[in-house]
Amino acid sequence: MIIVLKQQASEAEIQQVLDRIESLGLTPTVSRGAERVVVGAIGDERKLAEGAFESMAAVEQVLPILKPYKLVSREFKATDTVIDVSGVPLGGNAVQIISGPCSVESQEQMDLSAKAVHEAGCRLMRGGAFKPRTSPYTFQGLGDIGLDYFKNAASKYNLPIVTELMDVRKIDLFLEKGVDVIQIGTRNMQNFDLLKEVGRLDVPIILKRGMSATIKDWLMAAEYIAAQGNQKIIFAERGIRTFETYYRNVLDVTAIPVLKKETHLPVIIDPSHAGGKAWLVPALSRAAVAVGADGLLIETHPCPSEAWCDADQALNPEQLKTLMKDLRAIAQILGRDL
Amino acid sequence: MIIVLKQQASEAEIQQVLDRIESLGLTPTVSRGAERVVVGAIGDERKLAEGAFESMAAVEQVLPILKPYKLVSREFKATDTVIDVSGVPLGGNAVQIISGPCSVESQEQMDLSAKAVHEAGCRLMRGGAFKPRTSPYTFQGLGDIGLDYFKNAASKYNLPIVTELMDVRKIDLFLEKGVDVIQIGTRNMQNFDLLKEVGRLDVPIILKRGMSATIKDWLMAAEYIAAQGNQKIIFAERGIRTFETYYRNVLDVTAIPVLKKETHLPVIIDPSHAGGKAWLVPALSRAAVAVGADGLLIETHPCPSEAWCDADQALNPEQLKTLMKDLRAIAQILGRDL
Amino acid sequence: MIIVLKQQASEAEIQQVLDRIESLGLTPTVSRGAERVVVGAIGDERKLAEGAFESMAAVEQVLPILKPYKLVSREFKATDTVIDVSGVPLGGNAVQIISGPCSVESQEQMDLSAKAVHEAGCRLMRGGAFKPRTSPYTFQGLGDIGLDYFKNAASKYNLPIVTELMDVRKIDLFLEKGVDVIQIGTRNMQNFDLLKEVGRLDVPIILKRGMSATIKDWLMAAEYIAAQGNQKIIFAERGIRTFETYYRNVLDVTAIPVLKKETHLPVIIDPSHAGGKAWLVPALSRAAVAVGADGLLIETHPCPSEAWCDADQALNPEQLKTLMKDLRAIAQILGRDL
Amino acid sequence: MIIVLKQQASEAEIQQVLDRIESLGLTPTVSRGAERVVVGAIGDERKLAEGAFESMAAVEQVLPILKPYKLVSREFKATDTVIDVSGVPLGGNAVQIISGPCSVESQEQMDLSAKAVHEAGCRLMRGGAFKPRTSPYTFQGLGDIGLDYFKNAASKYNLPIVTELMDVRKIDLFLEKGVDVIQIGTRNMQNFDLLKEVGRLDVPIILKRGMSATIKDWLMAAEYIAAQGNQKIIFAERGIRTFETYYRNVLDVTAIPVLKKETHLPVIIDPSHAGGKAWLVPALSRAAVAVGADGLLIETHPCPSEAWCDADQALNPEQLKTLMKDLRAIAQILGRDL
Repeated sequence: MIIVLKQQASEAEIQQVLDRIESLGLTPTVSRGAERVVVGAIGDERKLAEGAFESMAAVEQVLPILKPYKLVSREFKATDTVIDVSGVPLGGNAVQIISGPCSVESQEQMDLSAKAVHEAGCRLMRGGAFKPRTSPYTFQGLGDIGLDYFKNAASKYNLPIVTELMDVRKIDLFLEKGVDVIQIGTRNMQNFDLLKEVGRLDVPIILKRGMSATIKDWLMAAEYIAAQGNQKIIFAERGIRTFETYYRNVLDVTAIPVLKKETHLPVIIDPSHAGGKAWLVPALSRAAVAVGADGLLIETHPCPSEAWCDADQALNPEQLKTLMKDLRAIAQILGRDL
Repeated sequence: MIIVLKQQASEAEIQQVLDRIESLGLTPTVSRGAERVVVGAIGDERKLAEGAFESMAAVEQVLPILKPYKLVSREFKATDTVIDVSGVPLGGNAVQIISGPCSVESQEQMDLSAKAVHEAGCRLMRGGAFKPRTSPYTFQGLGDIGLDYFKNAASKYNLPIVTELMDVRKIDLFLEKGVDVIQIGTRNMQNFDLLKEVGRLDVPIILKRGMSATIKDWLMAAEYIAAQGNQKIIFAERGIRTFETYYRNVLDVTAIPVLKKETHLPVIIDPSHAGGKAWLVPALSRAAVAVGADGLLIETHPCPSEAWCDADQALNPEQLKTLMKDLRAIAQILGRDL
Repeated sequence: MIIVLKQQASEAEIQQVLDRIESLGLTPTVSRGAERVVVGAIGDERKLAEGAFESMAAVEQVLPILKPYKLVSREFKATDTVIDVSGVPLGGNAVQIISGPCSVESQEQMDLSAKAVHEAGCRLMRGGAFKPRTSPYTFQGLGDIGLDYFKNAASKYNLPIVTELMDVRKIDLFLEKGVDVIQIGTRNMQNFDLLKEVGRLDVPIILKRGMSATIKDWLMAAEYIAAQGNQKIIFAERGIRTFETYYRNVLDVTAIPVLKKETHLPVIIDPSHAGGKAWLVPALSRAAVAVGADGLLIETHPCPSEAWCDADQALNPEQLKTLMKDLRAIAQILGRDL
Repeated sequence: MIIVLKQQASEAEIQQVLDRIESLGLTPTVSRGAERVVVGAIGDERKLAEGAFESMAAVEQVLPILKPYKLVSREFKATDTVIDVSGVPLGGNAVQIISGPCSVESQEQMDLSAKAVHEAGCRLMRGGAFKPRTSPYTFQGLGDIGLDYFKNAASKYNLPIVTELMDVRKIDLFLEKGVDVIQIGTRNMQNFDLLKEVGRLDVPIILKRGMSATIKDWLMAAEYIAAQGNQKIIFAERGIRTFETYYRNVLDVTAIPVLKKETHLPVIIDPSHAGGKAWLVPALSRAAVAVGADGLLIETHPCPSEAWCDADQALNPEQLKTLMKDLRAIAQILGRDL
């Protein structure tokens, strides 16, 4: 940790800073420049409370040196982590396309969806039984029975299922129903009690990025899960909130190479929620594979215009199939399978 | 709802839009301009799924007419709601200052804090026993015992207590310990299961604004609570996330007159978390009262530099007392008590 | 234009709105819903002053129907515009890579750069003689002589040159020195007097997106140029400013398909300024081609670590050559040449 | 400057960093921690090119110690600068309200405006003759003759005039017509050639904050002006661009105490452009004075609904008069005159 002192800091004040560094178990160093005295604090700064030095009169700014995350970092583990999702590898050479409808509506809709997902060549399926809706007056998901419809449909094609968990009290249900991957949604990225609970499971977790979460916030949320023992974490970029209102969110493709540098864990992209419009999905999906994502979450529906939510966002089965060809070709240029 | 059609929409496509409007139980109207056909859909649009029309080929854009929130709106209730917080009115003519430490540390610290809060003339006390920390490696709050320390200290001065709830499983504990106001934090503003649960209680709820929540998102989150029956909701602006990094967040004072126009519920401001620095708190607090807030959440600590979290953010008892005088004078200019 | 009236609007107030619509030369229509009266104003709303109706007591909101831009829109011209840049087509089937150093430093550096750009297979060259630097104390560009070095070097390989114009008083110089494409930088996107002046030229203009310009702002800035007669406009996405601080800007790839839908003009991407780091450039460039950009602006330097500005941003000649191969392969998947 | 090296940096790489520091005229220091080697570079880092160290293989991050601005900083001048605006002091104990219409429309409109501004007790007048409009098809200002109308009207009441300059070629005209304060607008905050030119004048400059300019960007823009000799600079906060769309911009009140700490120059607020609605202006103006602004820019119009631009933004003369009373009372609480 580097502590820059104010220009007018007195010797007594400098000494106070050095004393506090020692009292906190770190080792102080002093460097006197022409305009500023700079103090270093050598040791593990991660355990210090924020503001431990900022509140001292002589301190101008405090610059951390160490990254605040450990278990999820590349420094902790240099090689890529490949997560086994009920037999399907995620995070290795293969790019995995996870597809399915926004929400579970009926057994028939899920059967048709699973067929379409399978026939397009995808190896994982997504779908929501519990939906985080902005309005309390709109469809909130089918709930428990939705998980049954989903698992029934997906099992016929050996597709592991991915679905969102919003409430700690539903964890036992999710395990019982055979959910293969638990998704933590954007709005719960910093629901720390939920993160701690899924951190105690042995189930892969997709951690969606919060609407305005920085890369650091996001890595720290993953660290919450990892610190409890579960290191099967998959980051999912799904667009961030900015000033632009033409499209729902801004897909942050830069986050992919950055996360691949900072963490050993897989990183996927959700182009459907990012753009919010079906016609944007093919272009964003191509960019996602080209930028190096380990997988994609793409919404499909047997009949998009009849979907109970996000009707203008899902691809139909034919569009999914066509898109898969382009994505496969791009993956190959990067030396990957799809 | 207004549906603007594409320039090249055919008569058959226009008819499809009209048919769908009728099939959804609304009444269509058509207006033909020089460059565009515009279709109206008369009726309660709030129950329609998003994207119900956007997915149709002829539709260019869909403009909602009605506001998506009801119970929390000024249209629903024209007069200001005054919430009785264990005898202290919030939302009426009085401006209430809610003060106390970031986190509960010990009985002694809480006793000193309660004394300072009372002596400064504040009538409500805040403090955290369960802390949403960005890092899993830092102090997470004292938990259950913290609530006891807090209630013991506050009771001596008849100060109702305000504290944050992060986990639905802790609700019974909060009721049992006599928490007077439950705070839903920034990171849980769209934790819809938590909102539904506190919506079933008869306890006032402080709903903090999400880091990048729009006014509409925030009102809709309150609607989740209100829809379950609990209309004792207090909005708390605490700064939003922007591109600026000099200060932690940007305090959005414009939100206050806007919310006072849109909702009948009280609106308060948290200048401590917005600025993130004690030296900014007096100026931001003055602005908060001047802009029309119904209350403030101000962090105080008997000895700020020793605080276990956010040490550079809390005022000391003397600073709080001084600030109260200025705030009282500004409130009077607005014809309010403090 | 759609004007939504307040719930309590009186008949007299409604009549006032209708009268004003007529007085402004538009035709009013009225639609009475269960909760709101909605008034339409048929005619060309583009010429109305903003706020013409918002200031009336009965008006709740005003929703424009027509897009505010005309000449640059797809509605005005349905087919893609291909701009002839001194013999090199931009906006057609070919994807053009424009490369070169951040700033012109010397004749030798430009000669080496031109050679590298040519050998990598790029057909256009970029370089700055006038630099918009954040600090007045850093290198501001070589100025006039820089244009000579640049043109000399590029001419040997028949590379048309792209360079930034910051000051209306330099236009004659730019024409005289044979600048092939004038770049309007991010910080001048809404320098309307500059836009008007380049609108009177017969030279292609690259219009970079402002740091927080919406799609609409950007299209309107282009409309300023087009309204003066110059329709040779190339949009350049270069990253937008958000809350994220890990990387300089967030490259907004979604803007590409959106602009291709809204305008007939070419759209290119600058991955170098977006990411701000050379190691990010390959991944972002691949995404840019995959998402459908008509061209890229990539910084190269014969010896990046010795560059006078943005030393950590430029590729070296070898890296550029390698990247071109991947970009060509991706372009082919989209059925394009590169 | 602090340079943090990567964990795996070799001794040879460390030496390269030390060598480069010396070659750039600074003095290196080395500090070896448990996890990282940290190198300091003592000397004036402001002249270094950005990226001078980031491009080296062993470097993880570079942390500047010194602030990049000098002349405008509090370190350079500890006491508040009071600017004499043709006899009216700005930046001292008095809070100055600068009022007038958005744009100059006619002599009569300016006469009525000047009367209203004077009668409300304001001592400075604003008005636009050259308007930066988003659309090329809307009113662009009266131009030269507008300056005459403005000066004529204001002179009767000895009101110094404030008006916006957009084009370097108009500077002589502005001087000739007797403009007392030149305003540099939001869209030109980083129009560096314009900044340099007004830096050579002996006229006070209002420098509006760019739509997404950080505090640092803004101070650096002022440094451009100051570096040319003109230190009569007034910062004007006018709202920043965020994700919120309910109001035009988010007024960033936190910027006021922060600028008062960082710079010796006056800081004012424009509540009219921030909120974009007349009904928001009183609340925002009160907050502005309460937070410590040295002045305000408030739009007034003799008949707001007839204004040629921003009709829903201006106060009428009566509203201005009423507001002045509240502002005066708040200023007095802060020990200031108004």
